[in-house]
This record gives sequence, C-alpha cells and structure tokens, in this order.
Amino acid sequence: MSYSAFDHPVLSGLVGDDEVSAFFTLEAEIRAMLSFEAALAEAEARCGVIPEDVATRIGEVCATFEPDVASLKKATARDGIVVPDLVHQLRKAVGGDAAQYVHFGATSQDVIDTSLMMRLSSVSELLLDRLDHLFQRMQTLEARFGDNSLMGRTRMQPAIPITVSDRIRSWREPVLYLRQFLLRLDGQLFAVQFGGAVGTLHKLPDHGVEVRAMLADLLGLIDAPQWQSQRNVLAEFASAMSQITGNLGKFGLDIALLAEMGDEIELIDGGESSDVEGKRNPVAAEVLVSLARFNAAQLSAMHSALVHEQERSGAAWTLEWLTLPQMVAAAAASLNLADLLCTRISRLGTKQV
Amino acid sequence: MSYSAFDHPVLSGLVGDDEVSAFFTLEAEIRAMLSFEAALAEAEARCGVIPEDVATRIGEVCATFEPDVASLKKATARDGIVVPDLVHQLRKAVGGDAAQYVHFGATSQDVIDTSLMMRLSSVSELLLDRLDHLFQRMQTLEARFGDNSLMGRTRMQPAIPITVSDRIRSWREPVLYLRQFLLRLDGQLFAVQFGGAVGTLHKLPDHGVEVRAMLADLLGLIDAPQWQSQRNVLAEFASAMSQITGNLGKFGLDIALLAEMGDEIELIDGGESSDVEGKRNPVAAEVLVSLARFNAAQLSAMHSALVHEQERSGAAWTLEWLTLPQMVAAAAASLNLADLLCTRISRLGTKQV
Amino acid sequence: MSYSAFDHPVLSGLVGDDEVSAFFTLEAEIRAMLSFEAALAEAEARCGVIPEDVATRIGEVCATFEPDVASLKKATARDGIVVPDLVHQLRKAVGGDAAQYVHFGATSQDVIDTSLMMRLSSVSELLLDRLDHLFQRMQTLEARFGDNSLMGRTRMQPAIPITVSDRIRSWREPVLYLRQFLLRLDGQLFAVQFGGAVGTLHKLPDHGVEVRAMLADLLGLIDAPQWQSQRNVLAEFASAMSQITGNLGKFGLDIALLAEMGDEIELIDGGESSDVEGKRNPVAAEVLVSLARFNAAQLSAMHSALVHEQERSGAAWTLEWLTLPQMVAAAAASLNLADLLCTRISRLGTKQV
Amino acid sequence: MSYSAFDHPVLSGLVGDDEVSAFFTLEAEIRAMLSFEAALAEAEARCGVIPEDVATRIGEVCATFEPDVASLKKATARDGIVVPDLVHQLRKAVGGDAAQYVHFGATSQDVIDTSLMMRLSSVSELLLDRLDHLFQRMQTLEARFGDNSLMGRTRMQPAIPITVSDRIRSWREPVLYLRQFLLRLDGQLFAVQFGGAVGTLHKLPDHGVEVRAMLADLLGLIDAPQWQSQRNVLAEFASAMSQITGNLGKFGLDIALLAEMGDEIELIDGGESSDVEGKRNPVAAEVLVSLARFNAAQLSAMHSALVHEQERSGAAWTLEWLTLPQMVAAAAASLNLADLLCTRISRLGTKQV
Repeated sequence: MSYSAFDHPVLSGLVGDDEVSAFFTLEAEIRAMLSFEAALAEAEARCGVIPEDVATRIGEVCATFEPDVASLKKATARDGIVVPDLVHQLRKAVGGDAAQYVHFGATSQDVIDTSLMMRLSSVSELLLDRLDHLFQRMQTLEARFGDNSLMGRTRMQPAIPITVSDRIRSWREPVLYLRQFLLRLDGQLFAVQFGGAVGTLHKLPDHGVEVRAMLADLLGLIDAPQWQSQRNVLAEFASAMSQITGNLGKFGLDIALLAEMGDEIELIDGGESSDVEGKRNPVAAEVLVSLARFNAAQLSAMHSALVHEQERSGAAWTLEWLTLPQMVAAAAASLNLADLLCTRISRLGTKQV
Repeated sequence: MSYSAFDHPVLSGLVGDDEVSAFFTLEAEIRAMLSFEAALAEAEARCGVIPEDVATRIGEVCATFEPDVASLKKATARDGIVVPDLVHQLRKAVGGDAAQYVHFGATSQDVIDTSLMMRLSSVSELLLDRLDHLFQRMQTLEARFGDNSLMGRTRMQPAIPITVSDRIRSWREPVLYLRQFLLRLDGQLFAVQFGGAVGTLHKLPDHGVEVRAMLADLLGLIDAPQWQSQRNVLAEFASAMSQITGNLGKFGLDIALLAEMGDEIELIDGGESSDVEGKRNPVAAEVLVSLARFNAAQLSAMHSALVHEQERSGAAWTLEWLTLPQMVAAAAASLNLADLLCTRISRLGTKQV
Repeated sequence: MSYSAFDHPVLSGLVGDDEVSAFFTLEAEIRAMLSFEAALAEAEARCGVIPEDVATRIGEVCATFEPDVASLKKATARDGIVVPDLVHQLRKAVGGDAAQYVHFGATSQDVIDTSLMMRLSSVSELLLDRLDHLFQRMQTLEARFGDNSLMGRTRMQPAIPITVSDRIRSWREPVLYLRQFLLRLDGQLFAVQFGGAVGTLHKLPDHGVEVRAMLADLLGLIDAPQWQSQRNVLAEFASAMSQITGNLGKFGLDIALLAEMGDEIELIDGGESSDVEGKRNPVAAEVLVSLARFNAAQLSAMHSALVHEQERSGAAWTLEWLTLPQMVAAAAASLNLADLLCTRISRLGTKQV
Repeated sequence: MSYSAFDHPVLSGLVGDDEVSAFFTLEAEIRAMLSFEAALAEAEARCGVIPEDVATRIGEVCATFEPDVASLKKATARDGIVVPDLVHQLRKAVGGDAAQYVHFGATSQDVIDTSLMMRLSSVSELLLDRLDHLFQRMQTLEARFGDNSLMGRTRMQPAIPITVSDRIRSWREPVLYLRQFLLRLDGQLFAVQFGGAVGTLHKLPDHGVEVRAMLADLLGLIDAPQWQSQRNVLAEFASAMSQITGNLGKFGLDIALLAEMGDEIELIDGGESSDVEGKRNPVAAEVLVSLARFNAAQLSAMHSALVHEQERSGAAWTLEWLTLPQMVAAAAASLNLADLLCTRISRLGTKQV
C-alpha cells in the first residue's frame, strides 16, 4: 500500500529521498531499538546493576537479531506499540537467565523515543549538509546573475527594479537562518529517553541517573532527565521542518511566478505535459509550495500533541508517529527540489545596460 | 521506507486496513488509469471520433499492460505526474497507427482525477458497510447494557446519572448521520473528470460532451462538466473523513475516560505494557483520539488546496495527493478500531437496583 | 482591545462586515438568550409545566431586560459561561414566585447553543443573499467579457487559449454549489438545543419532548433531540464557511495573477501604496487568499472540537467559541470582497479578432 | 462586534487579559507607528538626510497627533493597510515644507512590522514575568504537596505510584524551557524593519544602513537588514506562543483528569453550573486545553504565511494579522489561567504513610 506520497513507488520519485528514507525503514527502527537494548545492558553492567556476562550475551544477540515481523505487526495491533513483543522475542533469543535482564528498568517509550532521537540526529546531519549545499547553489546563482536587473514586486504588482542579488538574498539568508536553527537544536534536541514505567526509574533506585548518563554516552546522545510527557523538543524540531519547507515554498513560488511571466527567467528541463507539446512546467517550484502547505498543516498536529496527559499519553504519542516522519520527509524533499531547481535556472533577471 | 504509519509494516497492524489499502496500491491506481484510457477509446469510437478497431486494440492492450515502474518513477520526478510517461509507454505497447489515438483529447488530470473517483467510489461502499456494521455493534451494546446506570458527566465532572442508552445514543446517532452524509456525497461526488488540456475539450469540438457522458457511463461514474480547478467535492469528502474520525474520537475518548475511572466499564483484551505486569491499556480507544486529531489537521491542507489557481494548479493538486489518501486510511482505521472496541466491552454501566 | 482583525476599528474596514457583525455583538447574543428563556417559559406554560402567569411575567421581563455586563464578565471568568449569572440576574428581575421558573429544566448549553443557532440561521440568509448577488455579478462579467479570449494556464504556464466564459465558469459554478450546500444545511442545521443538565430533560419527565417541539417552533428552529456532545452540524457549517473562502480564494488568486501579468485585465480603484506613486494593488484579491488560508486553519480546530467527551465538554465547546464566529466573519468578508472585486474589473481578456 | 472571544466584553473575562491587550488596541498601534515616524525623521536628520528642524517638527506632531479613525478605516478598505492614509493625515498635520519628509524612504510594511516588533517586545517581557511567576507557583505547590503520593498514570491507566514532585516536574520544567525559548528569541526577534518600497532603501542610497541602525537604536530594537519577505522570526514567535499554550494545556488536562477522578485533588472556587447545585467545574483547566488546541491550529496559518512571494506579499502578510495577535492573547490568557489554577489547588496527592 502507498497511502503516503513519500512511500509511494512512483510519487517518491518526485518527493522521495533515498538517503533520508533509509532512517525511516522498519529495519532502521529495529536496529536502533536493538542498539538501545544492547547499550542499556552494557550501561547497567558497568554500573553493577546486571551481571557483565549477561550484558555481553544481550549485546551479541542484539547485534544480529532479526525479529519475526508478522508477530510484531499482530502484537502492535493489540498493544499499540511494537516494544512488548520485540522484547518478548528478544528475551527468547537471549534465553537462559540473561533473558530477564533484557530491557531491565526500561519502558516501551524509552526504546521508541530514544530510537527516534538516534535516527533524527543522523537525519539532522543530512539536512544540515543539504542546507549548506543549497546555500552554495544560491551563492553560485548570485555569482552568475547577481548583477542582473529584476522587477521588484510587492503585493503581486511591479514596483521598482531591484537586482537579482537583492532577490537572492531573500532566499539565501533564510537558508543560513535555518542552518543556525538546526545547529542550535542539535545541542539540545537529541537526548536519550530513559525513565522506566512512569518516568521515575523505580527499578534502578540507586543507579538510575548513572545508567542513563552512560546509556546516553554509548548511544551518542545528550543525557537528560526523562521527557516522556514533555515534548517541546519535538514540537521545535517539527517547527524547524516546517520552516524549511515554508522558506523553500517562498523560493518555489517566486520561481513559479517568474516562470509564469516568462521574461526574467529561463529554466531548463521542466516537466512535460501529456497533451500540450513543448510546454515545460516548473514542477519542482510548484511542489515546493505544496510541501510548505503540507508541513504547515502537520505542524498543528504536532503542537496539538503537546497536550500529553499524565505520565504518558497514548493518544498524543501516536499522533506524533502519524505526522513527524512525513514532516521530515517533506523537509528533505524540499531541500532536494530547491537544490535541483537552482541548477535548472539558466538565466535570471535581465542584463543591465 | 515507511514514513506513514498507514504504510508501515508494523504500525499498519494498528492503523492499517487490508481492504481499503487495496485501493491505494500502485497497481490499483494503474489499473484504474488503464481502465480510463480503454473506456475513453471505446467512448470515442462509439461517437465516431476514432476508428473502432483502434479502440479495440487500445482496450486489449490496456487490459493486460504492465508498465515499467522504474521509468514511471523517473519520469514523475521530472513531470510531477505519472501520466505522460504512462501514456508514452502505452502508446509504444499499442503500436502502429492506433498509438496516436491513445489518450486522445485527454490530459493528465483527467486520468488521475477519474482514477481517484473510481477508487474512492469503491472505498465509499466499504466505509458505508463499516458504518452499518458499527451501528449494529452499538445497537448490540445497547441491547446488552442499555438499562444500566452511568454517571452523566459534564465538563469532566459527575453531574447526575443517566442510562447507558443515553450515552450510546450520543455515539450511535452520529454514525447514522455520517452514513447519510456519505450516501449523499455518493450521489454527487464520484464524477468523471474529462476536460482536456485546459478543460474545454478542444480536441473534440463536436463530440466532447457526448464522449464524456459515455466515458462516465462506461466507468460507472456520474457525468459532469470538468471540475479540474473546482475541488469542492474533494473538500467535502475530506470533511466526511474527518467527521468520521472526529465522532469516533469522541467515542474513543469516552471509553478511555471510563476505563481510567474503571468502575463503570470492563474491557477485555487491552494492550500489554512492556514493564507493568497485568496493566491493560485501552489502546484502540486512544488511537481513535489520535486519528481524530490527525484528520482534523489534514483537513486544513485539503481546504487550503481549494485555492486552485487558473485552469490547473500543480501546487494545490499535489497537496491533495499528500493528504487525502491518508485521511481515507485514518477514517477506515477508525471504523475498524471502533468496531473492535465495541466487541471488547464486556460490561458498561452498573446494574440499576 | 482588538486582537481580531474582524473586530478591529480600522482593519474591519477591510475584512469587517456591518450586517453580519450585528449578530455577533454582546447585545445580539443576550437578546437571543433572553428570547430562549421567554420562549421556554411560554412552551412550558402551554404544556402545563409552569403556570401561565409566570410565563407571562418571564416573557415581559425578558423583552426589556438589560443585564449587568460587568457582573456577567466577572462571573464568566469563574464559570466559563455567561448563563449562570445571567439566569441569576434574570431571576432577580423577575422576582417573586415566578423567579424559580426561569430557565426551568434547561442548562447553560441549551441557552448558548440555541442562541447560536438562532443567529446563524439569520446569518445564513445573509450569506445566501450574497452568494446570489455574487452569482449575478459573475453573470454580468460573463455578459460583458465572456467572448473575449484568455490564455488558458495550467501549472502556472500558458497552455492554449480559452474564452473568458470558460474561466468565469470555474468561478461561478462553485458559487452555485456553495448556495446548494448552505440551503441543504438550512434544512438540518438550525435546530434547537434542549436537553437539561445531562441531555435527558430529567426535570420534565412527562413533557420534555413536547416542550422542546414547542420551543423550537416558537424560535423558528428545527426540533431535534439534544446534540450537546454531537457537533456534526457545526463541523459542517464550518466546512461551508471554509469552502466559501476557499473558492473565493481561488477567484482572488486568479485575479491577482491576471493583475500581475497585466495584459489581460484592467482593474479600477486598487489600493494605494505609501511609497510608489501610481501603483495600484489588487488588495481585495489578495485578501481573498488570506481569508481562504485563515479559514482552512480554523477548520482544523472546529473538527478537533468534534472530540466532545462525555455529556458536555468544556474544552471542546470553548474551542468552538474561539473559532466559529471568525470563520463566519471571514466567509462574510470574502463574499463582500469578491463582489466588490467583480465591480472593479473594467476589462477581462482580450477581444477576439 | 465581538467575533473574537479575546475581544468579547464578557468572554474576555475568561480568556482576556488587561495588561497584554493594552498593546493590541488601535491607540497602542498608532502610538507605535507615530514613534516610528518620529524616530525615522530624527535618525534621518542625524545622518544629514533631512533637515534637523524638519525632524523636530515631525517629532512634535507625532507626539500628540490624533488621526481621524473613520478616514483610516475607509482608506484601509481600499489600500489594505492603514499606513498610506495615516501618512497622508500626518503630512497634513505637519504642514509646510516639512510634510514631504514625513515617512521619507520608508514603506508601509516598515511602519507596521516595526510597530509590531515594538509591541511584541513589551509583551514578551510580560510573558517572561508570567512564566517566572508560574514557575514560583509550581515551586510552592511542590513545597506544599511534593512528598504526597500520586498514582502514576500511563495511557490513561493507573501504573505505579509516583510522588506529587514527580508530576510537578513535568509541569514545571517546560515552564523553564519556555522561558529560555522566549529569552533566546528576545535576542534575535525584535528587529527593526526598514527597507523602503522593495527592501533596497533606494531613496537613501548613501545613508540607508546608517539610518536604519540609528532608527533601531532610537526604538530600542535590534538592527537588522530588512526581513519583509523573510518571516522566520514571526513563525518562531508563533511557535513559542503555541508551545506555551500546548504545555499549559497538558497541565490543564492533568488537573481536569485529577478533578474528574476526584480523590487525589481538591480544588476551590470552581465554576458554577446553571442547573446542578453544588457542582464545581474545573473551568480554568478545561480552557487551558481549548487554548492549546486553538494555538496549534493558528500555528499552521502562521507557517503557511512563510510562503511570502516576491518582495512583499499582501496575502501572506494579512494572514499574519488575522492570526498572530490572537496567538499572543491565547498564550497570555493561558499563563494567567495556569497561575490561577495553581492557587486553587488546596490539596494534591495523598499523604504517604
């Protein structure tokens, strides 16, 4: 099935993304979850909570374990989350006395949220690279066409002429801004989640904080108290995704409007039409606008999910799962399309005399 | 990749839907598109626009044609739509003089919108069946527990007692309402889209309206003038999807609140927890709330897409693709979960003395 | 204070609406609420629930009663609703034995929801008139310019020429559609709300349904069982408001794009700029787009408010108050602006040779 | 008229805010705009762009000028913005040769955006104070009840006991987080807008940057290049507003759920019901949830407004006006209500034995 255009075998050609989607496969999720369980065991062994050989055994199994996916799916229908069955399968694979120490002191949300952070942290690196790359592309556009004249337009009417540099500045500065935004989030967002059943690490009364710090370290994440019902970082990350698509939507709309008027831009390789010969559609520019509107709508769901009742909210948490991954996909696609669009501009503005 | 929970190999156990998802596979889309092309050729032949043997040839090829999906994906990245390449491949498969008559007078949007209508029409039948079924389930609940007493609660405070029947009425009447809503849409929504490049059927100056009527008839759709930039029916269908999830979100929240207080309901088969033995989570009830919030957010994107500039908007149209299928998935999942939840209620209210 | 542009002493010049806003003043609300209380007393007297002279007394007081607004405001801060204090004040004004019969059997939500229905019913008439009027305006545009040629544009690129009639059709047919939509709602939306504390009319065990029917009749509303936690009609009315603004947003964007390209339209009386002499901004066209995006966002809040827990939800109900009135304001403004914009078009398309 | 609950003479008792609303009156807006014009003249005089006595004259008039509001309203209907008429009136009041120097080199958006920044900067101080105050309130709650026991609840089911401190942490830490968020924005958000017609300060070719820096300094704002089509700071400020309401929505929902179950909390001074004697509704708690959902929806409009085409977008800019002020109102109301709610908690949790 392909409900989402981002997952669709054909539409993903338009809005998909091979690099980023690699972090949104079941396999990537499960590998991250198993890394959590392995690192947890190791951290607990180092702190003397569980025996060292047990941690070794758990780590070995996690390294290669392939869960029964049909069982995971069936169990998720019942439990609402994949973790209870995954842990059950993993315990069986670990076997013996060690089995009981798998997932010790952790809760499902610890595994899922931490796995998300691990993957978002990698995705964030990719997005930062793309922002850099896009910035360079825009610099190149400016180097080539910056001195050209462009009609300045306000409220969709010609006002007075500007330079192409002036316009490019309004596309490029936000790219820098977004880069700063993501970099800042980098320093506070990608934190381990570890709290146990109700966030109090009640099964590790003496070593909870110590284990958590070590767990964070082993996974390359920030150490922080549990945030299971405090979702600000996710709301902010979602805002960052929507600001990426929003700003690039502005870029796309500017290009589409230039292409519509036709005299101040030349584009190569536009989309073909099935009926009008020779027509070239500024497809990438339009899709940038679509992605901006899409993420703006998703953002309201992510902020609605801040209302995370009590110690853990199934309703709000599931709502995050339904929206955040596609917001990332939209931001990633948007950066790709904007980059591509830059390369398709063979003329911008008109030579000044 | 599995950006969407509805497409996810594991989460689809929770929010997926085998019956409805069958209409949202690439194969289903392509089969519907090929049906359009075959029916178009047949209608044009009957009206004397193209030769009859050409239509026969096109129909034969469409019946079994398997497109090169990798090529479709690559072309969609460029064209923003799958149709130009699909038509190109189809023409090649048809071959000879007949090839030029494939897709004659049509545009990409005709194919995609009509294919969507064909599939939504079938999905709508399924949803109607589920609404019926859910209504029966609620009738059964009433038959079993209707006379029991329940504390009436307003503003999240106990007010005065009601009967279980009173509460069930507030769940069941909306199900009837939604059924009427969908039935009404049935009579006006599922219309053929056929307008050609700019909606004027300019390549069929003499037979346009006649061909369109025949095309609609062959495909089992309503005949209507092109609606390529007039998207009210889609906005209304999206509203219907969101009203389904919204009303069932109310049902889910009511059940979750009853389960939280614990004394007026008994549920069987709740979700397991990975850390607290014996805890049973009202997962289906919570997910109903998530789906309601999800569709409410998507609806804003679908209504934003009403701003469909000029004869055809790439930006607004793509935005529909990004949101509508998942709104249908959410409504379908919601109906399944509500049905399931009804069967899990083993007691509701307290016996009146 | 003027948080809302619709209430703003200056911006309401742009997006305000004297006719419709008359139904969204405190005075209009209170008059409607007092009509409810008077009609309720009358209906209850006719059904023998309360003495006739009491109903007469209540009716007389309601006809002229002016509540202490400062007290209402203070009480609303505490109660979340205006009704308890209004009823308290009204009872005091009625005095004597009759006082206890004021609001007999009713709850706050009965008063507020019914008052809303009474006012929306009148507003709906106004909107229908405006849709009619706008349809005429568009007919006039077609009569004047319909035969002119216009470049058909798809995906923001010139495709092939159409006539002005073709384009106007895509503006005008939705106006008819919206008219049908509102007319249909008219027949099912404007229902009395009367249920008492938990919707069961428990204080009128013998005459509840009879009183409700008479109350509806007296107020010119449809009789229907209480719908206090079933908000589909409001969700649909909100959808109608958003479809009005969405479709007129399409009209506005089309005009703005024509004005930007400049050669196929002439507009008179555009907005002035504070710095560029002689520039004329298509302000009304732009604002139509703003209103479309605005209502699309509000709609998600109204659909989120379908999750109306238990017998009455303070949270979801208050959310309706925060959004629905402005959705109506936006739709009303949108119809005015579209009408105005039609009158400003002094040329559309180019004469065909 | 009172379309908005925040402007409503009675509902503002519930969600209004005297302190913050003072910055959202017409008078406050106009005073800020006149401050801009006065400071602009002074800055231009200091830089030798306009004569010093002219700046003095302009400053004197601005200090006391009272515009004709009816004329502003009428002109705004035409121009879409208040500034052209305000400048026109101001020039007339200034008179003589000095008149031509009023608003020299500026555009409407410079005035409106800068005026917004001036006011938001003050509002932000108020919100920071309230966050501090709320933090103290929560500290007090912890001091009083922190050691009490509370049933930890996950997925709306009892899990294992926690302390009241544990729960309060999940309310209080976000308050600190939001404080940091606003403080950070403080350092980058409140920037002057000064760009002239198309953002290039074309009327001040030699002194543009110098004048802008001085203007910023005079108004107590950050100096920054024009950001007329780059709206990230507004999108982020809107996110901050929505995160405030979202987090306090979680607090409100937690309290409402505690109040519903009844045994772990005692609240004083709840809302009265118009029909059930003695019932006390947790009105403030519910309204916190409403405000969270409200702002989450508005946020999608603010992010959609990032698509700000060309040098200045009338459509996107107007959309900001329709949404941002009420997002601020909702955040301010939310902080008040949360503070109030803290004071109404007379017991939380149960004494541990």
